[in-house]
Amino acid sequence: MRSALYTGNSTIVVEDRPPVPPAAGEVQIDVAYTGICGTDLHILHGHMDHRVRVPQTIGHEMSGRIAAVGAGVTDLAAGTPVTVMPLRWCGTCPACRAGHQHICQRLDFIGIDSVGAMQQRWTVPADVVVPLPAGLPLTHGALVEPTAVAVHDVRRSGLGAGETAVVIGGGPIGVLIALVARSVDADVVLVEVDAQRREIAGQLGIRTLDPAVDDLAGEVAAMTGDAGAAVAFEVSGSAAGIATAVELLAVRGRLVVVGIHSQPREIDVFRFFWRELTMIGARVYQRADYDTAIELLSAGRVGAETLITHVEPLTNTAEAFARLRGGGNVMKVLIDCQETS
Amino acid sequence: MRSALYTGNSTIVVEDRPPVPPAAGEVQIDVAYTGICGTDLHILHGHMDHRVRVPQTIGHEMSGRIAAVGAGVTDLAAGTPVTVMPLRWCGTCPACRAGHQHICQRLDFIGIDSVGAMQQRWTVPADVVVPLPAGLPLTHGALVEPTAVAVHDVRRSGLGAGETAVVIGGGPIGVLIALVARSVDADVVLVEVDAQRREIAGQLGIRTLDPAVDDLAGEVAAMTGDAGAAVAFEVSGSAAGIATAVELLAVRGRLVVVGIHSQPREIDVFRFFWRELTMIGARVYQRADYDTAIELLSAGRVGAETLITHVEPLTNTAEAFARLRGGGNVMKVLIDCQETS
Ligand SMILES: [Zn+2]
Ligand SMILES: [Zn+2]
Repeated sequence: MRSALYTGNSTIVVEDRPPVPPAAGEVQIDVAYTGICGTDLHILHGHMDHRVRVPQTIGHEMSGRIAAVGAGVTDLAAGTPVTVMPLRWCGTCPACRAGHQHICQRLDFIGIDSVGAMQQRWTVPADVVVPLPAGLPLTHGALVEPTAVAVHDVRRSGLGAGETAVVIGGGPIGVLIALVARSVDADVVLVEVDAQRREIAGQLGIRTLDPAVDDLAGEVAAMTGDAGAAVAFEVSGSAAGIATAVELLAVRGRLVVVGIHSQPREIDVFRFFWRELTMIGARVYQRADYDTAIELLSAGRVGAETLITHVEPLTNTAEAFARLRGGGNVMKVLIDCQETS
Repeated sequence: MRSALYTGNSTIVVEDRPPVPPAAGEVQIDVAYTGICGTDLHILHGHMDHRVRVPQTIGHEMSGRIAAVGAGVTDLAAGTPVTVMPLRWCGTCPACRAGHQHICQRLDFIGIDSVGAMQQRWTVPADVVVPLPAGLPLTHGALVEPTAVAVHDVRRSGLGAGETAVVIGGGPIGVLIALVARSVDADVVLVEVDAQRREIAGQLGIRTLDPAVDDLAGEVAAMTGDAGAAVAFEVSGSAAGIATAVELLAVRGRLVVVGIHSQPREIDVFRFFWRELTMIGARVYQRADYDTAIELLSAGRVGAETLITHVEPLTNTAEAFARLRGGGNVMKVLIDCQETS
């Protein structure tokens, strides 16, 4: 079977590899689609070489059908459409003992810390497999994982109906957060510098602002009777994104940190005190977030057709990464892993 | 009657002034004790001259007995022991409309933005007057306001029984937070650089650490089975205090910002993301916090006798400020306003 491998040095190669038969407690999946995540780009650029053992197949946003199950797996059967919640926790660290297994201090993020889904057949532990509804297109099924990230972020924020949410950063996660926020009947505005990303968000009915041109504080004030936003999601990973979020929040507003900040940020702590603001870190998801993500995708509330801008065959994985890296009219790129080997 | 006035230029003078008779809806109080707060020291040093109109009587931590009531005040009577919750809100700003009147965007903090309690007779609106239990010594009644700050901070943190709380900064508010945290059956440790403040906290049964000598992370790890603290209260107002708090928190830990940070602070935002931390601003109090503070003081759970290190007559107000400013074996200084004029 074919497998796309990150070999270090900003290189992806597609090779023939023997499929791994499922051992006891494991499931082998015929992968249909694997999405390329921002994290996968970081891996390609070498930023995560301390976690990835090359050569390694990466990828963790996926859909497929069960090919075979190992001994002792009785609740899953060949042919079932599935996705994977790619987290394995230790069960014994302080985070796990406190019930926060999803941020286990020894977390194995499958597809980063161990072998991922950019291959034709993928063998994983049965307990990370999540069945998909029969009617959900498998292209959409590959969006469950990033949608679950957005569901988790919105849930951590406590966002409620009628509240105003500002999303800073309009890549796939930012747009998904905006859509999930809309699904709880919040008023949403997305701040994004790139015109083509604003265009795609606009096609999904999301109101957008350009921070280079628009008066963000004035627009949010107008939306909220001068109160400011109840919630801001910082998805850009930039110093400016943090500063803007803090500026736009209402009294008792909540800032959710979604983006990766590679260095400490200067934060107006006095304003947190004065306005009783809250800053909330939010990372990956819990199983309930997967369930909600599947419901939203099944109900057509995530705009999957618009978000998936490109589907490339597995043999072209390197080109698909290059396309995503190049920016422009690109949102979510899926790798089609269904070709015959 | 005598009144202590801040006249600008780091100066407090005590003068004779005519008492203000209570107008309709007002109450005149014979002030018993007024505490000196860190904020009052800031006022004396000129840091709040944009809010204080000199010459002005300051002070907002107090106790006394009602001297007279104005027309229309039917639920309060002369002789009743009282304190004051010194907040007046506008009722119409976005914060007030959202139910957060205590952090009203046009808040009148009585004793800062308007006339305070360092005088023999003080006239205030009836709706800020809070009756005290007959059995509570009026010296202890003057601690209701700072205790309510601590109650509010602990309530905002969501601290629960069996959780570990680290308090960074061992002035009166830090010590009160430690005591309130203990009252909810949390395990508490107080971090304070000053040996005399640690000594006073120790007399109250609070475990203390010296950041210059002790291995804070190791001590907190030992207390928590390597998990880290569930809650950290940053009361020092220092950059180091913020950094230490973030370092000591467990996964899903909460950092409560209590201290005044006069400049932006560099914060490890990635750690907020990775460990799903929360930073919570907490300012002043709500009426429920006053009620809890009165209960705790009445039950003797605040160690008022130990916290009140000095009581000075109103005529010596300037000297009392100098004593507090000088540091050393000083925790809470009360002004005795009961002398005859
Ligand atoms: Zn674990
Ligand atoms: Zn107001």
